[in-house]
Amino acid sequence: MSQERKLTAQNEDFSAWYLEAIQRAELMDYAPVRGCIVFRPEGYELWERIQAGLDARFKATGHRNAYFPLLIPESLMQKEKEHVEGFNPELPWVTEVGGEKLDERLALRPTSETIIGHMYSKWIQSYRDLPMLLNQWANVFRWEKRTLPFLRTSEFLWQEGHTAHADETEAREETMRMLDIYAEFAEQEMAVPMVKGQKTPSERFAGAVDTYSIEGMMKDGKALQSGTSHYLGQNFAKGFDIKFLDKDNQLKLVHTTSWGVSTRLIGALVMVHGDAKGVSLPPRLAPTQVIMIPIGPAKLREKVMEKFDGVFQALKHAGIRVRSDASDATPGFKFNEWEMRGVPVRLELGPRDVESNQCVLVRRDTGEKTTASLDNIVARVKMLLDEIQLNMYQRALAFRTTHSHTHIETLAELKLHVSDQEAAGEIPGWVLAGWCGADACETAIKDQTKFTTRNIPFDPPATKSHCITCGHAATTTFWLARAY
Amino acid sequence: MSQERKLTAQNEDFSAWYLEAIQRAELMDYAPVRGCIVFRPEGYELWERIQAGLDARFKATGHRNAYFPLLIPESLMQKEKEHVEGFNPELPWVTEVGGEKLDERLALRPTSETIIGHMYSKWIQSYRDLPMLLNQWANVFRWEKRTLPFLRTSEFLWQEGHTAHADETEAREETMRMLDIYAEFAEQEMAVPMVKGQKTPSERFAGAVDTYSIEGMMKDGKALQSGTSHYLGQNFAKGFDIKFLDKDNQLKLVHTTSWGVSTRLIGALVMVHGDAKGVSLPPRLAPTQVIMIPIGPAKLREKVMEKFDGVFQALKHAGIRVRSDASDATPGFKFNEWEMRGVPVRLELGPRDVESNQCVLVRRDTGEKTTASLDNIVARVKMLLDEIQLNMYQRALAFRTTHSHTHIETLAELKLHVSDQEAAGEIPGWVLAGWCGADACETAIKDQTKFTTRNIPFDPPATKSHCITCGHAATTTFWLARAY
Repeated sequence: MSQERKLTAQNEDFSAWYLEAIQRAELMDYAPVRGCIVFRPEGYELWERIQAGLDARFKATGHRNAYFPLLIPESLMQKEKEHVEGFNPELPWVTEVGGEKLDERLALRPTSETIIGHMYSKWIQSYRDLPMLLNQWANVFRWEKRTLPFLRTSEFLWQEGHTAHADETEAREETMRMLDIYAEFAEQEMAVPMVKGQKTPSERFAGAVDTYSIEGMMKDGKALQSGTSHYLGQNFAKGFDIKFLDKDNQLKLVHTTSWGVSTRLIGALVMVHGDAKGVSLPPRLAPTQVIMIPIGPAKLREKVMEKFDGVFQALKHAGIRVRSDASDATPGFKFNEWEMRGVPVRLELGPRDVESNQCVLVRRDTGEKTTASLDNIVARVKMLLDEIQLNMYQRALAFRTTHSHTHIETLAELKLHVSDQEAAGEIPGWVLAGWCGADACETAIKDQTKFTTRNIPFDPPATKSHCITCGHAATTTFWLARAY
Repeated sequence: MSQERKLTAQNEDFSAWYLEAIQRAELMDYAPVRGCIVFRPEGYELWERIQAGLDARFKATGHRNAYFPLLIPESLMQKEKEHVEGFNPELPWVTEVGGEKLDERLALRPTSETIIGHMYSKWIQSYRDLPMLLNQWANVFRWEKRTLPFLRTSEFLWQEGHTAHADETEAREETMRMLDIYAEFAEQEMAVPMVKGQKTPSERFAGAVDTYSIEGMMKDGKALQSGTSHYLGQNFAKGFDIKFLDKDNQLKLVHTTSWGVSTRLIGALVMVHGDAKGVSLPPRLAPTQVIMIPIGPAKLREKVMEKFDGVFQALKHAGIRVRSDASDATPGFKFNEWEMRGVPVRLELGPRDVESNQCVLVRRDTGEKTTASLDNIVARVKMLLDEIQLNMYQRALAFRTTHSHTHIETLAELKLHVSDQEAAGEIPGWVLAGWCGADACETAIKDQTKFTTRNIPFDPPATKSHCITCGHAATTTFWLARAY
């Protein structure tokens, strides 16, 4: 844990701030493999808590976990044409084992539609086998050119749900159900507001009929696609021959869905809540919710420690994730240290506090300092954690609202908006825009402004009447943003 | 779920029985990749329960989880010489990405000592950083020639603990602590008795100073090495330059350990408890603990179902993993089906039961059938699950005792024992033997009898005075067995 110097300011170089913050908080470290990271315990525990929260929701909606092989034979990869074309450039291949060359190359899975499709064609025979609702927690590989810890790495961890249904209605319901679960989880547990919407055709998952996403706004105003849910239609059912005998005795193709979130959610947590002091974690996911620090001269320490241990045990017993730091570092050093790591509440206890049967509570989110009686300290801390959780969400929502712009009608206005904002040292944020539906108009936005279409929100704050690029009648209103 | 024909008898062809049992219980299926399997939900849930039980024990003893990259550069693999020689023949290599050849081959991890050693050398600087106690849940790869589902597959799932300590004493304590945790877990949760002991030098982990194992006896009398814990001394510390500044201001090499169990534990569960009816699962790990089946003619079903649902809810509410089967299959079909899947308790409820406010409980382990009042059904079922758990352990222990032989003094006697047992249609089981310590004597046992040394038990039932091979004075008493 090094505190040699302050973090780079967020508004000076957000990317530098991010890389410093996640390393100093020991969430990750670089690995000696191109584009790969090590998830250190503080980072991995965030993932464990994300897993636990999502896994409970998946199981409550009837899904079960399974595990499929990492290695996918080349012939299997190629059965869905769009799919393989989408992923081919990023695939690592196993070509030899021990000293011997393999007859067929094996891809490290970028996602598992193909191998799961292959198994589903074997397992699904009758309408009685449907719906098939499986999920997998696994490592996946996409060898992308530009990498960024948590957000885009050669190997990452994720979950991928794969379901098969008797008809389109049910499959589309499933696609929406899982998108809703992602948004609810992100908002309730991560304190990150999300915009739910549909991707434009150019941003669809390779092989999908429709792709939906949740998008969050990071503190630099960029968007982060944080989860996707796909209605795959009968594309994979055709590619892998997944058929069932229906009640009417007809042999039919199933309709499939897939949906996933990954360890990039850890990056979202940091980029949405972090500040000049470092990482800041929402109480529901924080590995440590309360850091307790004894205060005052060493000679009075014994008197403090008795009370200190009592409070520690009471909090722990109540299920609060509490940790104490009684090392010989100075209080100031410790305060910085645990703020940098994002612990939501600091509890200080000194000799005078013991005398007056109270302690000092400091909120990580606002810096606010209050004294609290030790009589009902458990209830007080629980309430404070709830307040912080809610405040972090509301603050993130207010930030997104402030930086979402709905008044821009043309590309010229968009360019002016960006240059005005940047000249003022502000972030350009998100821009709501109309679109005529033509690919060329969508491409022009990206080429001229580096803004890309995020999604077509289900619940837009306004409806645009004209295409931002060509000015013709708009069929669609979507969010534009620079994005990770 | 196919019930076309009975399972092969265990004493006729144990291996055929095993493969049929695990497929019909839908624990696994074969994947379209050499030596790989799919963990279906019933099998994967066993792994999830094993993970939960072990993970809680690891955390209670101060360990935290982390995640390291799957891909290990060839240069890193080669830093510990014995280690790389041990694993080289089984390593799959990534040699190209997209269309391009890599400058350096990347191995799919067979275990992670090398990459973790590399990171530890960076993270460990001072005695304050010790002990470092990390664990990883991950997929690993060992391309072995003969594969067997769960027991030996090209890809498998496991946990690997990796710890670093300031001195040998502490590292050796850790090695033993984790072996004890494995044995306690296997006995308490899996109902599988284990023999704890030390491996002979020839059976050591590649790069270890000492390897310890837990060994279980399967129903065919073969041994299954079910978990290992290694004291690695300073071998990896030297290979990866893991040094720390001690309190005395001296720069010292750390002492490391590693320890692991894998999805082969699922195989152990099946091979220890399974029988002619199929898989049989201990209540503490069974995905379904109680299967409820309504009995009697359809016209009386409505009356039964009200009571049935009440019992179902009461059991569920009490935290019992209960499932009901109200499909239109015959009761006989259902009984076979759920017995084959290994559900510990069957609860039957028919019209006459409803009248007399009772139900029928059938134990999977003994087949015993009793009636029970519905008044205190939750307590009755809980007690029954505890009884079954204990009985399964005791039965497995009795089986092991019966098939453990301590009276054999020479290789000639061992050969005679094997031929006598086989002629009688019995299994040869385990044999306690003395050993002089010479490699040649150990090799001779294997060559002549196909029995291998399992481990040198900490608590042998007897101490042998003479080497089973050469007859000279024994320095060691170990268990011999045919093994998976």
